Amino acid sequence: MALIVMKFGGTSVRDTKRIYNAAGIAARTFNNGDDVVMVVSAQGDTTDMLLEKAEEITRAPSLREMDVLLSSGEQQSMALMAMALGELGVPAVSLTGWQAGFQTNRAYGSARIKNLDTERLAAELDKRRIVVVAGFQGINRYDDITTLGRGGSDTSAVAIAAALNADRCQIYTDVDGIYTADPRIVPSAKKLQAISFDEMLELATLGAQVLNNRSVELAKKYGVELEVLSSISPAGGTIVREVLEMNEGMLIQGVAKDTKVAVVTILDVPDVPGVSFKIFSLVGQKRINVDIILQATGREGNKDIIFTVPAADADTVRGLLAENLPRFGGRDVSVTTDVAKVSIVGAGMQSHPGVAARLFEALADENINIRMVSTSEIKISVIIDAADADRAVRAIHDAFMEDVGR
Amino acid sequence: MALIVMKFGGTSVRDTKRIYNAAGIAARTFNNGDDVVMVVSAQGDTTDMLLEKAEEITRAPSLREMDVLLSSGEQQSMALMAMALGELGVPAVSLTGWQAGFQTNRAYGSARIKNLDTERLAAELDKRRIVVVAGFQGINRYDDITTLGRGGSDTSAVAIAAALNADRCQIYTDVDGIYTADPRIVPSAKKLQAISFDEMLELATLGAQVLNNRSVELAKKYGVELEVLSSISPAGGTIVREVLEMNEGMLIQGVAKDTKVAVVTILDVPDVPGVSFKIFSLVGQKRINVDIILQATGREGNKDIIFTVPAADADTVRGLLAENLPRFGGRDVSVTTDVAKVSIVGAGMQSHPGVAARLFEALADENINIRMVSTSEIKISVIIDAADADRAVRAIHDAFMEDVGR
Repeated sequence: MALIVMKFGGTSVRDTKRIYNAAGIAARTFNNGDDVVMVVSAQGDTTDMLLEKAEEITRAPSLREMDVLLSSGEQQSMALMAMALGELGVPAVSLTGWQAGFQTNRAYGSARIKNLDTERLAAELDKRRIVVVAGFQGINRYDDITTLGRGGSDTSAVAIAAALNADRCQIYTDVDGIYTADPRIVPSAKKLQAISFDEMLELATLGAQVLNNRSVELAKKYGVELEVLSSISPAGGTIVREVLEMNEGMLIQGVAKDTKVAVVTILDVPDVPGVSFKIFSLVGQKRINVDIILQATGREGNKDIIFTVPAADADTVRGLLAENLPRFGGRDVSVTTDVAKVSIVGAGMQSHPGVAARLFEALADENINIRMVSTSEIKISVIIDAADADRAVRAIHDAFMEDVGR
Repeated sequence: MALIVMKFGGTSVRDTKRIYNAAGIAARTFNNGDDVVMVVSAQGDTTDMLLEKAEEITRAPSLREMDVLLSSGEQQSMALMAMALGELGVPAVSLTGWQAGFQTNRAYGSARIKNLDTERLAAELDKRRIVVVAGFQGINRYDDITTLGRGGSDTSAVAIAAALNADRCQIYTDVDGIYTADPRIVPSAKKLQAISFDEMLELATLGAQVLNNRSVELAKKYGVELEVLSSISPAGGTIVREVLEMNEGMLIQGVAKDTKVAVVTILDVPDVPGVSFKIFSLVGQKRINVDIILQATGREGNKDIIFTVPAADADTVRGLLAENLPRFGGRDVSVTTDVAKVSIVGAGMQSHPGVAARLFEALADENINIRMVSTSEIKISVIIDAADADRAVRAIHDAFMEDVGR
C-alpha cells in the first residue's frame, strides 16, 4: 500500500468530463489499495474570470482581498471533485488550504509555506477517504487567506507529499511529460523518461508549462519524487528525482528557449573597482534577477557592462540605470528585448569538453550570431537574436540528437 | 457614534455598479463616524450557477461538499466589496464565516448558529475598518464549512447585530419596505413605517421576498431592531421591532396571500380518542409543518379531519396517509393544492371583535367561498380557492383600507 499525491491543474478539471476523468484516475489508484491525496487547481478559466471581476472594481485591489477572491476558485473545484468521487462510490472529503493545515507567511499573492500541520489530512486518510485539497492556498498567522502565487498548486502538492512522506507526487497536466525540446519547434523532440531536479530547474522554460520552479526546488529539498504525466493518457510520463542512473554517454537532457529576456548594455563605464558592485546592488534592490553578466573592453580604458534580465523588468532597469548613470560614470544605457536565450542542459556535460564547441559549430553552420555565452556545470546558454531562436533550437537538437534524452 | 449592521442581498451586489452602490451606502455611514459591519450574499445568479455545476456532476451531492461549493459565492462577493470600499478610500477587511466566528451545528445545508465568537470582528472594528462578512455560512465543530439555508444571510446579519449589541440591523434589498399587501396585486397598498416582530412573522408570505422568518425570530429573541430598505433609494424603509407605539385605532398591518399551501382531507375517521394524535404524530415525524386544523362531523358518527400543509409536502403527506389509512380507520384521503391562504395581520385585532365579520363580509360581497378559517391573537386566515386569491386580497385590503398600515 502506497500513498500517492496527485495534482490536477486547471485544464485537467475544467469541466464535468475532465473532473470525472481525474476522479477516475484517483479512484482506480484508491481501489487498488493505495491512499490518495488529490490537489486541485481552480477550473479552467475561473481564475481569469475572477481577475476580470476584480479589475472591473479597481485597478489597485488589496492583495489580501485578491487572495480571498482567487482562493474561492480552488474551493469550488475541490467540492465538485469530491462530489464526483462520491458519485463513483469512493469516499472522499475536500479540504481548503486552512483545513488542510497550510500555514504560510503573510506575503499575499506569493506566500511561502511555513508549516504544514497534517493532523486533519492524516485523520481523513486513516478513515480511508480520498482527500481532495485546494491547491495554491493557505492561511497566515492572522488567520487570513493567502495564495502561493504562480504554480502554487504544484507547490501545495509537493508540500503534502513531503510532509506525509508520500511514495510519489504525480503532476497531471495536459502534456504527457518533459521533452528534450518544445515539440512545436522540434518535431523530433523526445520525451524524457527521467530527469534530475537540477536539470529540471535549468530546463525551467521547457518545464514552465508543466512544472513550476518553486515546486521543483521544494521537491529537491525534501527528496520528493515527481512524475509529470497526462491526465488524458496517464501512462509513461517523466520522472523528476534526485539521482539518475549513471550512464556512459554524454547526456543532453534538453534544449530550451526563453524569449522573455532583455539584454542591458552600459557603455563606457570607467574601469575602476566597485563600479560593478554599485550597478548590480542597485538592480538587486529592485529585486530584479540578473542572469548572464559580461564585461567587454570599451574605449579609452573604459569597459562595457552587459547583462540580461527578465524582459518584464526591462523598462524598470532602463529607467533606474539612466537615472543613476552619473553615479557610476557610464556614457549611455541601451536595452533590447529583441533577443532569446537558448540553452542545452545535461548533467554529463561537464566531463565532455567538446559540448560547447559542438554547440557553436551548430549555430555557425546556420549563420546564427552569438551575442553572449554563459556556462554552468550542467548548462550552456547563448544569447542570440530573437528571430534566430527556433532555428537555433532545431540546429542544436539535431547536432546532439543521438545524445539527447534517455 | 453607533454600530450599524447592513445586509446586502444577491441582487444588491449583483454587478460592479451595484457593489459600488452598496459600498457607497456603507462608506457614507462610516464617514459619519459610525462603525459598520456589512453582511453580503453571493452575487446575483452565482448560487444558481454553482448549483448547476453540482447538478452536472451528480444528482445526489454530498451535503457537506455542497456547502463547501456554495459558500465560495459569498467569499467572492465579500472580497469584491472590500476592494470597492478600498477604492472609495475606506479601510475595509472581509471575513468568511469561520473568520467571523460563526460556529454552527453540523446540519449541512441548514445549519443553526450555536455561537458567534466576536473577537476578530470586534478587533477589526476597533481598527476603524468596515468589516465585510460573508453571509449564510459558518463552521461546525469539525472545522467543516456549513451553510445556514434559505435566507441565511439575514440570519448572519441579525446574529452579528445581536452579538455586538448593534444599534440597528439594516436589511438592504430591492424593495423599499414591507407593504400592507403585495403592490402587484393591490396597487393601493401602503408601505409600513413600522411593524412588530410578531406581526412580521405572521406576514411571512409578504415578507418572504424580503425577510426570512428565522432572522425575524432571532431578531425578536435578541431584541435586534431591523430596518428593511431599498439599496437603490435607501430613505424610509420599514422598521421591525418589539413594541410599537400604542395607537387608538384598530390596526391591520397587512393582507397576505400564500398559494403554496395544500389542503388535506381524511374522510370518515372513527370519532374515537387518540385518532388525531396518531395522524399528526405521523405527519410530524416527517418534519412536515401542519398549519390550520379543522374537524367536521362526517357520516354515521365519523368525522372528517382537514388540515393544511406546505404545497411542497403534499405528495409526501398523501402517500404517508394512504399507506397508514387502515391504522386510524379512515375511508379516504384527498389532497388539493388548488387553494390559497389569505390572512390579515395586526396586533390591535383581538380587541376589535368586528374584524372577522368585516373580513367575511368583504369576501361574501365578492362571492368568494371560505373553506377554512383560523384565527390567532394577531391574525385571521382563510383558505379559499386559488383562483379567488388576488380578488380576495384586494377586497379585504379595500375593506380595511382606513385601518391598514400606519
